Amino acid sequence: MSTITALETTDVRFPTSRFLDGSDAMNPDPDYSAAYVRILTDEPDEFEGHGFVFTIGRGNDAQVAAIDTLAGYLVGKNVETLLDQMGETYRWLTNDSQLRWLGPEKGVMHMATGAVVNALWDLKAKRAAVPLWKLLADMSPDELVELIDFRYLSTALTKEEALSILRQAAVGKVDREVELLKFGYPAYTTTPGWLGYSDDKLRRLCREAVRDGFRQIKLKVGANLEDDRRRVGIARATVGDDVAIAIDANQRWEVDEAITWIRALQEYDLAWVEEPTSPDDILGHAAIARGIAPTPVATGEHVANRVIFRQMLQEQSLQVLQIDASRVAGMNENIAILLLAAKFGVPVCPHAGGVGLCEVVQHLSMFDYLAVSGTHTGRTIEFVDHLHEHFVNPVQVHSGRYWPPAQPGSGAEMLGASRSEYTFIECESIAI
Amino acid sequence: MSTITALETTDVRFPTSRFLDGSDAMNPDPDYSAAYVRILTDEPDEFEGHGFVFTIGRGNDAQVAAIDTLAGYLVGKNVETLLDQMGETYRWLTNDSQLRWLGPEKGVMHMATGAVVNALWDLKAKRAAVPLWKLLADMSPDELVELIDFRYLSTALTKEEALSILRQAAVGKVDREVELLKFGYPAYTTTPGWLGYSDDKLRRLCREAVRDGFRQIKLKVGANLEDDRRRVGIARATVGDDVAIAIDANQRWEVDEAITWIRALQEYDLAWVEEPTSPDDILGHAAIARGIAPTPVATGEHVANRVIFRQMLQEQSLQVLQIDASRVAGMNENIAILLLAAKFGVPVCPHAGGVGLCEVVQHLSMFDYLAVSGTHTGRTIEFVDHLHEHFVNPVQVHSGRYWPPAQPGSGAEMLGASRSEYTFIECESIAI
Repeated sequence: MSTITALETTDVRFPTSRFLDGSDAMNPDPDYSAAYVRILTDEPDEFEGHGFVFTIGRGNDAQVAAIDTLAGYLVGKNVETLLDQMGETYRWLTNDSQLRWLGPEKGVMHMATGAVVNALWDLKAKRAAVPLWKLLADMSPDELVELIDFRYLSTALTKEEALSILRQAAVGKVDREVELLKFGYPAYTTTPGWLGYSDDKLRRLCREAVRDGFRQIKLKVGANLEDDRRRVGIARATVGDDVAIAIDANQRWEVDEAITWIRALQEYDLAWVEEPTSPDDILGHAAIARGIAPTPVATGEHVANRVIFRQMLQEQSLQVLQIDASRVAGMNENIAILLLAAKFGVPVCPHAGGVGLCEVVQHLSMFDYLAVSGTHTGRTIEFVDHLHEHFVNPVQVHSGRYWPPAQPGSGAEMLGASRSEYTFIECESIAI
Repeated sequence: MSTITALETTDVRFPTSRFLDGSDAMNPDPDYSAAYVRILTDEPDEFEGHGFVFTIGRGNDAQVAAIDTLAGYLVGKNVETLLDQMGETYRWLTNDSQLRWLGPEKGVMHMATGAVVNALWDLKAKRAAVPLWKLLADMSPDELVELIDFRYLSTALTKEEALSILRQAAVGKVDREVELLKFGYPAYTTTPGWLGYSDDKLRRLCREAVRDGFRQIKLKVGANLEDDRRRVGIARATVGDDVAIAIDANQRWEVDEAITWIRALQEYDLAWVEEPTSPDDILGHAAIARGIAPTPVATGEHVANRVIFRQMLQEQSLQVLQIDASRVAGMNENIAILLLAAKFGVPVCPHAGGVGLCEVVQHLSMFDYLAVSGTHTGRTIEFVDHLHEHFVNPVQVHSGRYWPPAQPGSGAEMLGASRSEYTFIECESIAI
């Protein structure tokens, strides 16, 4: 029996804007940041639960404050009760009526809940001495459906349908785990394609991506069509016809504009078009998808919750679903989203990069492969080679694959030295 | 020439949960609260801009922290530049790429921006020595469209269409202003219908509502169908056939459940059914609207932004649109929403109550009557008789009408004594 003694938060910011890493059509100068939380207990095992919300700089303090609000809910609570009933724990936090008013289920408060839920999963996996992907994959279908909040999903996915999907995927799970450990999980790289890079740097990084074994790259687009045509052309000429190229507009366009713009790039054979417009625009994405078919539309890193995802699947707004490790209310809501995607037969290709997103989201894709969709055909996890050195267990990506982490936990734990060194102090603030 | 010297925030909470005022099917024990902001300048005129986000208690501290984040944007800025270009000012704050990541355009950060934008409007109206409804109504169509962010609206409303709506409404504006001052604007009351009230209290408050001149009341429903049938029946028997009765489920239902439940209440002749399900569920609201026609569906107090509202209008998800004074990014975004509603011919009946919402939102309805829709037929502003005594210029509601405020400003200014007395101190926190 142990008790939560503290939620310790840190405002961590890396000054990435100095190098234009991560620059795109909507986000010219991100400072990759984490509103970071450690859950401490009085158990002498020394295990801590770590989690975070990824942000791109200013406002990270407000995100930290939202996580701090949750200390009042968790400190003093029995750890085993929370961890043994992760479905109840998650629903208790997301359905608290007063906190719910601040969303509901979206934005800063929702992401704060996600960080705390994920930190509890990290603690649970560490106590079980297994990586999170393995912990989740070894849960039974009945245990897994207990993690979900089926509220507002009934028009698309019932508990019985979810059980049926999970039971079907349980067949062959052991074989797939052997295969996963032997061959890893497909990755693609966004490293070559940031908008702020020169043509020479783009060309060089495309060559390196192919050399490193990636079968897909992604380019940021949407600032200038002629530049995009030139850059996608350079990429296609450099990687050849056998490597896929996705493009990402980061919500830059109106609906008609998106269709026109994408059509002008289709000759380069696009794997998908990501975030063409507002992430809230279910109807707009559906119109774009119809207008650019058969090129798939991908979105999700800014989709606020399972209710919006459910509608995007119902309206065929997306053909590639991109979960994010820290946008929704943690692992529980992401498992619901994986089940929705499986129900509609849509592949999940997670958003990653930023800081720590690769480390965490790989667990969900590997779990999906083993226990939900049962396949990684047409699926690939984003990889960006930034800031991994700050993590206790950085991702292992080589030969174009993510290699399953063996260490216990969720992957979220950042090195103490990095957290200290990059703790944001107000006076560092750059003039806005 | 003056400069913003400070954004001073206060965490104000009224312990309303002790009396079950404001109790509904999703929110059993709200503590009406305000994340309050004062914008101070170095101008010797002593005018301050006041604004707030309404919350229901826990998490109000996180909402305050999000407003504090905006101090870094505003302190030191020239006041006249900001106030003279309120469209630019609003778009600058909502399109800041780093802050935008925290939504985008939804949740705590978006509402924080709304509070600050509204505080600037309050300051602008005070400097102009007019109430905000008058300030807005006297702006030209060209000035008004400059306030809007048309991004993501192009499938439903262009700048030219907005101009056309405003120019059409400009005809007869002077006459309508005379009429407004003479006859006020229709109000309805939710005071009788809180879920925690006894049947006797319901009956008594229904009688008082009719006696006070209200032509519509609203009842909270959704916890128990038999209770709802009894309570709506009591209300109908008490108010008679000539007073409208709306019901409000506060997001309690699944889609099919909503249709079944509402059909079981339709014999009592419902003016509208409010928030039947998730405020993110565009498709679900549309299905409910089809399933309960001709009873109208109303929603909006939790609709995150103009992009969701635009889709709800496109899909006929709502037949009554309920703007809220503090959910979206302030007056500017609400003006866009009023224009969208006018485009689709849907009446706007604002959400109010809480603390301070009546005081602020009346300005938008009166502006809508004068300069956008040009009518108040089928339109009515919610009124709840709570906490008005804490405002410098409390609403004047009598004879079932809102009476246009004459005092300069937006109505948001809370008495200094109330702010001090109800400033939340952590140790008051009730166990969760």
